[in-house]
Amino acid sequence: MFVVKAARIYGKEDVRIENVALSEPQDDQVQIKVKYCGICGSDLHAYLEGWGLPTIPHPLTGKTVPITLGHEFAGTVVKVGDRVKDLKVGDAVAVEPLIACGKCENCRKGFYNFCNNARAKDGAGNFLGFSDDGGFAEYANVDEFFAHKMPQGLAYELGALAEPTAVVFEAIKKSSLRAGEDVVVEGAGPIGLLTAVLAKLAGANHVFVIDVSEVRLNKAKELGLKRILNPNQVDVSKEVRKECPNGVDVSFEAAGVQATFENALKLTKRTGTLQIVALFGKPLKVDMTNDVIMQGVDIVTTLCYNNSYPEVLGILNNHRELFSKIVTKKIPLAAVVEKGIKALATEKDQVKILVSPEV
Amino acid sequence: MFVVKAARIYGKEDVRIENVALSEPQDDQVQIKVKYCGICGSDLHAYLEGWGLPTIPHPLTGKTVPITLGHEFAGTVVKVGDRVKDLKVGDAVAVEPLIACGKCENCRKGFYNFCNNARAKDGAGNFLGFSDDGGFAEYANVDEFFAHKMPQGLAYELGALAEPTAVVFEAIKKSSLRAGEDVVVEGAGPIGLLTAVLAKLAGANHVFVIDVSEVRLNKAKELGLKRILNPNQVDVSKEVRKECPNGVDVSFEAAGVQATFENALKLTKRTGTLQIVALFGKPLKVDMTNDVIMQGVDIVTTLCYNNSYPEVLGILNNHRELFSKIVTKKIPLAAVVEKGIKALATEKDQVKILVSPEV
Repeated sequence: MFVVKAARIYGKEDVRIENVALSEPQDDQVQIKVKYCGICGSDLHAYLEGWGLPTIPHPLTGKTVPITLGHEFAGTVVKVGDRVKDLKVGDAVAVEPLIACGKCENCRKGFYNFCNNARAKDGAGNFLGFSDDGGFAEYANVDEFFAHKMPQGLAYELGALAEPTAVVFEAIKKSSLRAGEDVVVEGAGPIGLLTAVLAKLAGANHVFVIDVSEVRLNKAKELGLKRILNPNQVDVSKEVRKECPNGVDVSFEAAGVQATFENALKLTKRTGTLQIVALFGKPLKVDMTNDVIMQGVDIVTTLCYNNSYPEVLGILNNHRELFSKIVTKKIPLAAVVEKGIKALATEKDQVKILVSPEV
Repeated sequence: MFVVKAARIYGKEDVRIENVALSEPQDDQVQIKVKYCGICGSDLHAYLEGWGLPTIPHPLTGKTVPITLGHEFAGTVVKVGDRVKDLKVGDAVAVEPLIACGKCENCRKGFYNFCNNARAKDGAGNFLGFSDDGGFAEYANVDEFFAHKMPQGLAYELGALAEPTAVVFEAIKKSSLRAGEDVVVEGAGPIGLLTAVLAKLAGANHVFVIDVSEVRLNKAKELGLKRILNPNQVDVSKEVRKECPNGVDVSFEAAGVQATFENALKLTKRTGTLQIVALFGKPLKVDMTNDVIMQGVDIVTTLCYNNSYPEVLGILNNHRELFSKIVTKKIPLAAVVEKGIKALATEKDQVKILVSPEV
């Protein structure tokens, strides 16, 4: 056991940089020196609203707040537990930050992101950084099962992008998007931008990105996306239908409000797919008969990812330059709230802010 | 051209038994002598509310009301058009009553139930009996493409069941139900009962049928279904979870209201499927984040069917005795409103009422 610096969340608007004791890794764990850990929209919700934090002991980890925040991290293996087989000291790993029992029906089927035994009664998130200590720390212990060896020479910054990229990869996977199909992405926040980028890499033909923020749409352009639509300036439906008269094959909802959901439905062709990537703060009103059944639109959702990290790391490795543009700022651990979480909430030009505990 | 007796709908609560002129079949059509035509819930909606009727010329058929009602029919081929190849006079056929262009993107892909050119601006249904003359008549002209030769010796009564069975078959198909999985069916009306029967035939393990009508639940028992639950009498969730602790793999929503939708969601296991078979009269409120995304439940819908009739006729042929129990009454054409449509609306023990124009 030794002492490490970490950003601990105690509850709503209460994050403290503290020295905490870190235990030795368990037999099936590795200990990693964290190189980078990205700030996610869900960290923002945890900070602003206390969203997803364990107020009673989590059924699998037994933990409650305070918890070390951060779940998008990569680092170097510095210690290995006795039963660790494939990883060794010095390996660069990207962490898949899920908490799962490995034994229930869903885990057995490979759906460990829906582990039946990781469901907390208080709705605490079943990932590191929520119901167990995460990556805003100098060091972290991680199950070998969830520590993925990074491709040779891939920068740790890109390893830290594996998590949000996996969220999007899972959505692309579940949407059954095929090369040559047309796509709409509602929302050009970090997840919307990554979705549009991955849809393009997956061979989508037309990819329309829709947002009301010019700053975000400009970022989309920087990322090589050409069909940028601001509903405050153009008739989005008309613009999409100029090139796709029947609508698009797959629309991705990465904004999470009633209006964007309805718009995504309208832009999807009959027999197309509406893939939900965002979470919705409020219940949705859905005209199931006229807008869904009669149109034959499949509404598909995803939560996190499973069995996606190897592919995601391959994609990041094959497109290093492109994904580097996603990182808009790097900050030290001590600045995680002021220059990180708060900046993400207020600065529309931020896509991914990385925290470096080494600085 | 000759004169036939037919039940014509002029609008809400206005069905008349009339003599109408029937033209010769077109080159790619057959003319059939109708043996039986079932009454569907949608006929009821057409009669009570004017639902689905063409008030302006339908884009493909050019027809407006009055229209000969009826879309669940089977009969004998009595004439064939010049380009008809596979059918001949005397053949017994079950009619797939869709209207489709055969040329648009969806038709080309086999999704002719979502034909882009059959969409009426006034929401008129794209099937015979709505936007073209249907089966409550002594004779009808039908495209060869949509006239399916019945298996040798299959009774016409069962041929008339092909349409509602196809609705359900399509839902089972889209739900990806596999043998050994567990099923809930919300609603034991005609479609709910057929769904439960087909789920059982498809190898489902536990099949729970839920309805508040004892009469309907008794009918379910007659059809060999054993797990019959009345929410007014038992705690449905508790009963289902006694045998399926995590919930069922696939729930079928065949009732179409907010409460049954929510209940179906609750009874579905994480990563399971909620297959919608009913239409919903009102917009649904859906807690997408907590009830769908976090549970990993796929919500899947279907509208009619495509490419399902051959399999459906095979199923009906293999289970003649079982499906015969679905038919609860046979009436003459002249009685279609009083003893048919109205009986279906008021008598809970009616499942399928067949109209026979020959009587």
